[in-house]
Amino acid sequence: MDIEIATIGGYEEVGRQMTAVRAGDDIVIFDMGLNLSKVLIHDNIQTEGMHSLDLIDMGAIPDDRVMSDLEGDVKAIVPTHGHLDHIGAISKLGHRYDAPVVATPFTCELVEEEVDDEQKFGFDNEIIRMEAGETMSIGDSGQVELEFVNVTHSIIQAINPVLHTPEGAVVYGLDKRMDHTPVIGDPIDMDRFREIGREGDGVLCYIEDCTNANKKGRTPSENVAREHLRDTLYSMEDYDGGIVATTFASHIARVKSLIEFARDIGREPILLGRSMEKYSGTAKRMGVDFPSDVDMIGYRRSIDQTLERIMNDGKENFLPVVTGHQGEPRALLTRMARGETPYQLDDGDKVIFSARVIPEPTNEGQRYQSEKLLGMQGARVYSDIHVSGHLCQEGHYEMLDALQPQHIIPAHQNLKGLSGYVDLASNQGYTLGRDIHVTTNGNIIQLV
Amino acid sequence: MDIEIATIGGYEEVGRQMTAVRAGDDIVIFDMGLNLSKVLIHDNIQTEGMHSLDLIDMGAIPDDRVMSDLEGDVKAIVPTHGHLDHIGAISKLGHRYDAPVVATPFTCELVEEEVDDEQKFGFDNEIIRMEAGETMSIGDSGQVELEFVNVTHSIIQAINPVLHTPEGAVVYGLDKRMDHTPVIGDPIDMDRFREIGREGDGVLCYIEDCTNANKKGRTPSENVAREHLRDTLYSMEDYDGGIVATTFASHIARVKSLIEFARDIGREPILLGRSMEKYSGTAKRMGVDFPSDVDMIGYRRSIDQTLERIMNDGKENFLPVVTGHQGEPRALLTRMARGETPYQLDDGDKVIFSARVIPEPTNEGQRYQSEKLLGMQGARVYSDIHVSGHLCQEGHYEMLDALQPQHIIPAHQNLKGLSGYVDLASNQGYTLGRDIHVTTNGNIIQLV
Amino acid sequence: MDIEIATIGGYEEVGRQMTAVRAGDDIVIFDMGLNLSKVLIHDNIQTEGMHSLDLIDMGAIPDDRVMSDLEGDVKAIVPTHGHLDHIGAISKLGHRYDAPVVATPFTCELVEEEVDDEQKFGFDNEIIRMEAGETMSIGDSGQVELEFVNVTHSIIQAINPVLHTPEGAVVYGLDKRMDHTPVIGDPIDMDRFREIGREGDGVLCYIEDCTNANKKGRTPSENVAREHLRDTLYSMEDYDGGIVATTFASHIARVKSLIEFARDIGREPILLGRSMEKYSGTAKRMGVDFPSDVDMIGYRRSIDQTLERIMNDGKENFLPVVTGHQGEPRALLTRMARGETPYQLDDGDKVIFSARVIPEPTNEGQRYQSEKLLGMQGARVYSDIHVSGHLCQEGHYEMLDALQPQHIIPAHQNLKGLSGYVDLASNQGYTLGRDIHVTTNGNIIQLV
Amino acid sequence: MDIEIATIGGYEEVGRQMTAVRAGDDIVIFDMGLNLSKVLIHDNIQTEGMHSLDLIDMGAIPDDRVMSDLEGDVKAIVPTHGHLDHIGAISKLGHRYDAPVVATPFTCELVEEEVDDEQKFGFDNEIIRMEAGETMSIGDSGQVELEFVNVTHSIIQAINPVLHTPEGAVVYGLDKRMDHTPVIGDPIDMDRFREIGREGDGVLCYIEDCTNANKKGRTPSENVAREHLRDTLYSMEDYDGGIVATTFASHIARVKSLIEFARDIGREPILLGRSMEKYSGTAKRMGVDFPSDVDMIGYRRSIDQTLERIMNDGKENFLPVVTGHQGEPRALLTRMARGETPYQLDDGDKVIFSARVIPEPTNEGQRYQSEKLLGMQGARVYSDIHVSGHLCQEGHYEMLDALQPQHIIPAHQNLKGLSGYVDLASNQGYTLGRDIHVTTNGNIIQLV
Repeated sequence: MDIEIATIGGYEEVGRQMTAVRAGDDIVIFDMGLNLSKVLIHDNIQTEGMHSLDLIDMGAIPDDRVMSDLEGDVKAIVPTHGHLDHIGAISKLGHRYDAPVVATPFTCELVEEEVDDEQKFGFDNEIIRMEAGETMSIGDSGQVELEFVNVTHSIIQAINPVLHTPEGAVVYGLDKRMDHTPVIGDPIDMDRFREIGREGDGVLCYIEDCTNANKKGRTPSENVAREHLRDTLYSMEDYDGGIVATTFASHIARVKSLIEFARDIGREPILLGRSMEKYSGTAKRMGVDFPSDVDMIGYRRSIDQTLERIMNDGKENFLPVVTGHQGEPRALLTRMARGETPYQLDDGDKVIFSARVIPEPTNEGQRYQSEKLLGMQGARVYSDIHVSGHLCQEGHYEMLDALQPQHIIPAHQNLKGLSGYVDLASNQGYTLGRDIHVTTNGNIIQLV
Repeated sequence: MDIEIATIGGYEEVGRQMTAVRAGDDIVIFDMGLNLSKVLIHDNIQTEGMHSLDLIDMGAIPDDRVMSDLEGDVKAIVPTHGHLDHIGAISKLGHRYDAPVVATPFTCELVEEEVDDEQKFGFDNEIIRMEAGETMSIGDSGQVELEFVNVTHSIIQAINPVLHTPEGAVVYGLDKRMDHTPVIGDPIDMDRFREIGREGDGVLCYIEDCTNANKKGRTPSENVAREHLRDTLYSMEDYDGGIVATTFASHIARVKSLIEFARDIGREPILLGRSMEKYSGTAKRMGVDFPSDVDMIGYRRSIDQTLERIMNDGKENFLPVVTGHQGEPRALLTRMARGETPYQLDDGDKVIFSARVIPEPTNEGQRYQSEKLLGMQGARVYSDIHVSGHLCQEGHYEMLDALQPQHIIPAHQNLKGLSGYVDLASNQGYTLGRDIHVTTNGNIIQLV
Repeated sequence: MDIEIATIGGYEEVGRQMTAVRAGDDIVIFDMGLNLSKVLIHDNIQTEGMHSLDLIDMGAIPDDRVMSDLEGDVKAIVPTHGHLDHIGAISKLGHRYDAPVVATPFTCELVEEEVDDEQKFGFDNEIIRMEAGETMSIGDSGQVELEFVNVTHSIIQAINPVLHTPEGAVVYGLDKRMDHTPVIGDPIDMDRFREIGREGDGVLCYIEDCTNANKKGRTPSENVAREHLRDTLYSMEDYDGGIVATTFASHIARVKSLIEFARDIGREPILLGRSMEKYSGTAKRMGVDFPSDVDMIGYRRSIDQTLERIMNDGKENFLPVVTGHQGEPRALLTRMARGETPYQLDDGDKVIFSARVIPEPTNEGQRYQSEKLLGMQGARVYSDIHVSGHLCQEGHYEMLDALQPQHIIPAHQNLKGLSGYVDLASNQGYTLGRDIHVTTNGNIIQLV
Repeated sequence: MDIEIATIGGYEEVGRQMTAVRAGDDIVIFDMGLNLSKVLIHDNIQTEGMHSLDLIDMGAIPDDRVMSDLEGDVKAIVPTHGHLDHIGAISKLGHRYDAPVVATPFTCELVEEEVDDEQKFGFDNEIIRMEAGETMSIGDSGQVELEFVNVTHSIIQAINPVLHTPEGAVVYGLDKRMDHTPVIGDPIDMDRFREIGREGDGVLCYIEDCTNANKKGRTPSENVAREHLRDTLYSMEDYDGGIVATTFASHIARVKSLIEFARDIGREPILLGRSMEKYSGTAKRMGVDFPSDVDMIGYRRSIDQTLERIMNDGKENFLPVVTGHQGEPRALLTRMARGETPYQLDDGDKVIFSARVIPEPTNEGQRYQSEKLLGMQGARVYSDIHVSGHLCQEGHYEMLDALQPQHIIPAHQNLKGLSGYVDLASNQGYTLGRDIHVTTNGNIIQLV
């Protein structure tokens, strides 16, 4: 059976991930993402009303025109998890394909919210919920099967899809870290990866998340970030002024930890900000392992009313968890820093960034400004209480050891960013150009 | 009563700490340390046989000639903990003073080992063990008292000595972090610091450990490093080859964690290397909360025999904890990296640096070379599984809030290194030159 | 005679410089500057209409209230050169003092433009032009004299004022580098500095520009930047598309080099942008050694017309020298990068930044964005063709050697920034707290 | 005609360059270099007596076993210039090929010195001198011709060899910068490159020097370094103590500038150190544009005698130009820093590093230690008076524009290091995997 991989997007950058795997006549698409930074560099652009072609020209969404060179039918669109760089283009490109979206329930919810917001294109593809550990037959050959292997990432219900073919498995490894003690959900299913590596014809091809490929060592568990966060918040137990925290809104496990530790130190947590409300609201609705009794407010007017209430009731009784971890100019924390909300920061108040700065000068400038403004109001800033959601080199080493793939395709980085992965794989006996395929967007790799 | 502070050493550098406080006729000396880097930059120098004056000229030990300008008698030499930059000059300078060494039991043991090794000078000062929480009367006035307040650092039984005088307390704040969940011993006694800050005349002067004064945020608890280390070692549970770890030999809590996690994953821990044997042996002898049943080997011949035994019995059953975390050319790990020991590193073997590189180009070069050589043998390196033992800025902020001292003297750094502390204190209402005393080695500050 | 130094502004930062020297009854003020970054962090603020007290509260201009503690009369306000951090507060604070502004002609012109723009305060102080090498008697004692010593900086007609008193000279050393081959004007007058260091009572006090105090080595001459720039532009001689350059508008020597090399490679230079027109226009009017026949356009509408003409005539015939070297959002180059002007950048067009990025995250973010947008249009970017205008450590060493001052006051930096100067001076035999005065804004140092 | 490129060494690192081009039956080898860092990481290794296979295993010299897969005869071994990473393996591998070494005269001299030092292998290949601009027929087909195009690098007489074939030219672009005003020799021959790009079938393949591929902008001319050096030395004209300079011994143009400026400021230059004597001696013997009347001393005993003479005659009359620019432990400058030579450094003496630190932690550590030891003796250090000898990105851009090659092969870097070149070429319309060949050591690329 012919096996081809179309590397459509995210092979020269972090963002706008999209990969198609053809096995015989059947095609499965993994991810359809948005590169938000390509949008934000322009002033005053809203993607909701934009045409896909303009977004392709900007480099914001994958250029899927290479799909016409793949001979077969798309049978499924499979986003691996709910981050925008993996689902953000479904609303723009998904309708072109007569195929269902297949994803974990939480991811499906987020996809549905995305397509509901879309103003330009209609979307009536079926959305199918499938859990980690489950499988689905693909096409009519009876020979191709899609499996979801449970992985751990900075969002819940992330999976790595595996396409089982008569020629071996194609494992799509985006995005994950190797977490044996995640705060929500099950540990990464390394046993299953090891099985896949050894059963039948083994792994024909592994597509790897190279975000941190130049970082040495091993990404710690979310549990380490949780202990760091616990230590930080518990150390503030005696403080009787304001404490504010911010983190990635989509990082449900982190938000959960913040909620729990807020309560442990006698404060009421409140989630504030549009995306905070969106992700946590979804988690709450779905009944995942998340505190169901926490307030979430998304609209600006309600947020300001809530902040007024906090000030009236005594801010020492609350821990607002807000948006703005990158210093985004219009986010709530930045508005607080500018003194534009009813929440008054006083000398000694604490602000916790349970996030790291995304290392790009624009972010760094905005975050610096946000911290500077917070400091001008007397706030004490606690940064970088965080661990990454992506494998570092020792995780890559372990994945290669588990899967022993015939072919490797590094993804989710530019050439410089993935260079460390090529070095690592070369040391393990792979050879660039032979079985390590460093490629570009818009390419088709014929494996069989 | 006259109160003067002589800032003898460690006010222009990290290392060779020494401070004298005169209260009326009585003088107490805090710390007498060695700056090892001033020795190591020269080839082939052994300090044991050197004269103190030569070591002073090299900048290796404090220049205590300013002591002759202090009118009074030294009543006690008080090392705060057992690190060399705090006790390493006692063997060279201590005999000049007719006064006992007063320290916690573990520190006393280490002082005794130091003076035993000394070849040039005799030493017959009394050594008095005093526990955290205890006090001792100083001199005959009945008005001066020495108290040990429990603190937390990267070595056990660290204290901050407080000299209570009729003019208020002088709090000597070197070295500590603010740890509420240390792995061995009690949490930092912040309640007592807060009391001292408020009782009687409060705090006349606070001398602060500014090692990390330019680092934002808060130093995490040792417990966070422990969870990071646990996560790392547990992730190796299934590995059936060699695992080697290195850390600061004096960091008893870290060594303890290594021992425990080694056993948790089914390996026998063995401590190897001269300083590993020295510090852990001392801890074991003293009955601190440390595994009493672990092997420790210090002599090179025995080490090599042990490594041979490990290779024969199967290295997958052991976890050697060795010296060499900075890539020191003659340390055991470096010898292992060069293939100079019976221990064979194979492809995939793990080496854990539970330490960070001390940020100085010589260290960085040596550590780089060590990791490079390890990598050439196939070893996988896990670095930086560590947290600092020193307060960062938010710890400094909390200490000022607790003590509310009249005067502040930043120490344990050069001017650049302590600049962040001056900024922080200035924001809290202190003024450089008025109540923030940025000073140099060999100076006397008259407080009353 | 009493000699006091009031360190009013710029002793904890770079920006808002102001120092007063009292010699007996007579006071001379050196510099009255603006810290623009304190304004820009707030959105939508225009300083022209603001009250001085609000600007003081923001930290934007010096807090000159300490002047009331100096007993004597201000006899002169002496800005050392025309940069905003040295003259930018004259329009806000100058009117409070019944004293003339005394400066070199070019600086005087720029001061006049500043006070003309001021909307809140009137200003009718006399403005006196005095050349480098000239002197002026201060007050009625007949004992105090002001001298201008020629120095070299990144703006023309910079001087170091020296106040000769019966107790020795007070040398105000802001801002300079040691340039023996400047492109415009005379070399730094080291002979005169050496004379001042040895004549009469020598130098009582030296206030030093510590901007680069942590930088090793020696700041090169402007001639080195000029050769670098020449090499860059000559290498483009054969290019037949657009070339655009940007630099500090006030850096007249650099603009001159750009003009000359543009002509050498057969292109017509045109200066575009409000500040480009302002500084170069002033230089041209005054008849300094500057091309008198170059077009300068400051108004936006005229700029756009000019760019249209350039496009029509063929951009290969021109070299626009524009504002925007820091990626300022509203500067001309940034507008060009966004495609908001008639000037079309094509693939391969060259953009020369004859400037370095001011190392602060906000600038770095903006400059990054500007370069990114230029690159998206195909432009090729040449950065960092520049040398600093400030002494590095070897210049400081040479100044101490020349002047041999009794007292030293580091300025024009925060504590971290000036720490390298204290180290250097300490190595030369000075002692912090005795004859090195590390101080803060709002302090008075009594020298005699 | 078949055209193949064997990428033998230097495609995964900087060092041990070796490339073979087969055109029909004829093979030309470009470079045979040594990667010294692979030797130095081991203690006490001398390459002179080592077997080639051991050196190959260490990664020190190219693994030329792939040559057996090339069907044809080696007709010439063509080192492009005299640096060790281009000629250092000729003594180990050259004898295996029945072919002459063809190089510029200066390079030939250095090759002869290398093979004379070799202890293990004999070498009787012919050595043919060929000047830039000349050509040589290769093989008997009458269709293949070797041309030397003059380029500019940090050593004199560097060329880029071009192999003209019926299928187009193969241009081997290692190592160069684009210098229009070199200090010795002719400017880079861009006219010829442009001709080659346009004549006949144009350029089939371009192999590029990617050393600086991740550096933005344009490498300045040696003339800019020269002006920087002139400015530095002239600024010391009045100093009446010791001045010492160090630079790359092989950088004849830089050494020449040092000699000239030493004389301009009234000092006698003397070249000291084994490699200083070797390279400059060669240059002098050959009659290149180099001062013929300068003393050069290579043996340690003579060096120490000379230093003694300098001290006796007055060191203010001399400018020793010495080895040790990287802080190499056994180099002369390091010995001077340790006080192991008769040359006494006094307070204020100047040491000029006309070199940058090669950015690798081992070097950085050694250089740091050297500067530290110099500083402990009172020396003032001037670093980084240097420009690189390799193209930065704008040079790469111009080369692509001139040659317009069909195929590109990045070399002289690892994957991370060359990633910037791939990005640049991609922006110019090339595609990774199609006409950009990112490859590894030991590979063969079939072009026709």
